[in-house]
Amino acid sequence: MSFQIPRGTVDLMPGEVEKWQYIEEKARELCRRYNFSEIRTPLFEQTELFQRGVGETTDIVSKEMYTFMDRGGRSLTLRPEGTAGVVRSFVEKKIYGEPQPTKWYYIGQMYRYERPQAGRQRQFHQFGIEAFGAVDPVLDAELVDLGWQFIRSVGVSGVKVALNSVGCSRCRPRYREKLVEYLTPYKEELCKDCHTRLEQNPMRVLDCKKEGCQRVTEDAPRMVNFLCEECAPHFETVKESLDLLGVEWYLDTRLVRGLDYYTQTAFEYILEGQGGHAGSLGGGGRYNGLVQEVGGPEMPGVGFALGLERVLLALESRGVDLPLASGVDCFIVSLGDAAKKRSVLLLKELRQMGSTAERDYLDRKMKGQLKAADRASARYVAIVGENELEKNQVVVKEMATGEQNTIQLDKLATYIREACGKGQS
Amino acid sequence: MSFQIPRGTVDLMPGEVEKWQYIEEKARELCRRYNFSEIRTPLFEQTELFQRGVGETTDIVSKEMYTFMDRGGRSLTLRPEGTAGVVRSFVEKKIYGEPQPTKWYYIGQMYRYERPQAGRQRQFHQFGIEAFGAVDPVLDAELVDLGWQFIRSVGVSGVKVALNSVGCSRCRPRYREKLVEYLTPYKEELCKDCHTRLEQNPMRVLDCKKEGCQRVTEDAPRMVNFLCEECAPHFETVKESLDLLGVEWYLDTRLVRGLDYYTQTAFEYILEGQGGHAGSLGGGGRYNGLVQEVGGPEMPGVGFALGLERVLLALESRGVDLPLASGVDCFIVSLGDAAKKRSVLLLKELRQMGSTAERDYLDRKMKGQLKAADRASARYVAIVGENELEKNQVVVKEMATGEQNTIQLDKLATYIREACGKGQS
Repeated sequence: MSFQIPRGTVDLMPGEVEKWQYIEEKARELCRRYNFSEIRTPLFEQTELFQRGVGETTDIVSKEMYTFMDRGGRSLTLRPEGTAGVVRSFVEKKIYGEPQPTKWYYIGQMYRYERPQAGRQRQFHQFGIEAFGAVDPVLDAELVDLGWQFIRSVGVSGVKVALNSVGCSRCRPRYREKLVEYLTPYKEELCKDCHTRLEQNPMRVLDCKKEGCQRVTEDAPRMVNFLCEECAPHFETVKESLDLLGVEWYLDTRLVRGLDYYTQTAFEYILEGQGGHAGSLGGGGRYNGLVQEVGGPEMPGVGFALGLERVLLALESRGVDLPLASGVDCFIVSLGDAAKKRSVLLLKELRQMGSTAERDYLDRKMKGQLKAADRASARYVAIVGENELEKNQVVVKEMATGEQNTIQLDKLATYIREACGKGQS
Repeated sequence: MSFQIPRGTVDLMPGEVEKWQYIEEKARELCRRYNFSEIRTPLFEQTELFQRGVGETTDIVSKEMYTFMDRGGRSLTLRPEGTAGVVRSFVEKKIYGEPQPTKWYYIGQMYRYERPQAGRQRQFHQFGIEAFGAVDPVLDAELVDLGWQFIRSVGVSGVKVALNSVGCSRCRPRYREKLVEYLTPYKEELCKDCHTRLEQNPMRVLDCKKEGCQRVTEDAPRMVNFLCEECAPHFETVKESLDLLGVEWYLDTRLVRGLDYYTQTAFEYILEGQGGHAGSLGGGGRYNGLVQEVGGPEMPGVGFALGLERVLLALESRGVDLPLASGVDCFIVSLGDAAKKRSVLLLKELRQMGSTAERDYLDRKMKGQLKAADRASARYVAIVGENELEKNQVVVKEMATGEQNTIQLDKLATYIREACGKGQS
């Protein structure tokens, strides 16, 4: 009987997992500098939270959720995205009653039952940011910049920010009316999905990638021309601030973030490829209605989420080699029982001093041990035989140069630490 | 409509999450030194894997699993422990065909439907180690030491290792026979659970915490006296090596790790409290039969898993304060629109230089901004008003001393970086 990994999931193995550690570390470090704190919500929530907080009509909720009953008969769902749980926590713990803003980030697994393909797994990972309690449009720009810098700092170049404003509950209804008025005569030229969109969420027709729909919407009215006296200056300041911060952005008046509680700023990180648009790494926007939707008071919010699989795929497609640390600082080759025993303590000393230290675990002969050292990419090999042991010495060989030194056994750990530039524990 | 977190799960909030980051970082650093690489398997697996790899008769599998059908009709289960998935990966990817040993670690969420109580959540976290492909008993001792050092390095003192050998498929059957022979006459004095154990897994009777059962087993034969000629010297070397490494351990001949494929070494990390034993932080052992059980070749393995909630609870009960970094390096107070605009760039410079920098997002007056700086535990406050801006200057105040300096605007980032001892990006 042998077992297979569930479809749409992958094991992150040594060799690959170091890339994940690297980009996660970059995300954490950037968040520290921007004074965002981590929050970790459970990987499952009450199903209703996502129905309410993501929206029942979305594909995510209607088709893609991992939903199950627990042994107590409660319906739970593996989180398909990170914002709903974070907002639930913000409301349940009454964080809205504390001085604002609240600046949080998360990194972790998400689950959607989709057809697996490159960059799209059923278990996938997002790095996300949420800032509650401030309407300041400069904050929107700073968030856009943070995500953009994250992408650049891990080594992905050629990413631009697509930007739009989707208005608010004051200006959007009037625009929506105009849009429906414009689109209705062309209804027969729209795709089947867009027929439904025209009824439920007409702005999403603008977002449809089908050629026919794009043609119809080419000259359709755009939200940015209908912004109210609050949304218009907000959008102006976001754009100005992005310029001030040096972010490469462009206006994309077709960009809509599907959900009703999205307001004002909407953005996506677009990877430029050969021949333009090569996919989105993620995006975000303002959601001044969401906290209320999940049972809290009226409270603004803005955030983004980036797909880490997509970021890593972009790195790969750009041929970027990450500067990953790897390999063993010192591999101990020991010959004979007494030397092996001593090497166990030597290893412990090396490790306590901060070095990566390794030995042979298969009672190999000298040659086999040296081969193992080579496989482990050891920078130094320390050889302890009976002769050396008698004189309390060890032979240290630098693998790159072949240079050999004989040193005192009790100096080995310090020697390696200094040679490899490792700090003390 | 408001939402609650699912029972038995918690949000790890800022203030608490930093402790998690700290102990996880310690685990990763220790693994780096010991040359263990991280592996991340999915949070769910085929249900059968756990039935096979954990055991159908265990409480975990029979009562505590989160099992559900996915939309394709496959039975999936949220992982109740980490080893089964890691072994599945080892077998599925044929890692057993590569040079051994394979040294892996994992850190992550596990799921068991249990009655929630202090230190026991339905979503909980484990740090675990698995080493495949080596029978060397010194490796067992090194692993025990690694876990013990992890616990000590995060600040939990007074932990001892309970150690036993549970033999192997050669010596255990003979011992089991002797044990059943000894226990059967006392059957009526055993608890109801132990009646079942006596049938299914008699060694677990030794492990029963009930007084009556403990009395019956007081003089029962012990596995360590029945070890075969392979298991006996293995156990001797484990004990010798633990002494050599300075690990505080004691023999606990009642210690059994429930499952059939456990062989030889078994251990637990026991927290000493007032009046002795205050609970286990986790444990492990050898499982030379598991890889085969999951469809691989015969291949030895040894590992442990530590409950991170329990480690943090132990830290709390010992009153240990972790050395967590926190607070803002520089909070910018700006007065007037031009100064605010300039401060956005100043913030970016500070952050690019590696400092944690913050500002007010609520258009507060001077006094409110200073209060916000105080709440953010800012080490320095930089004040930019219209006067300063005209002269291209900024007033920097160290909060602890009240000391004030006026410096050039474009020197601020360097000034703060040096004052706070932060490295460059």
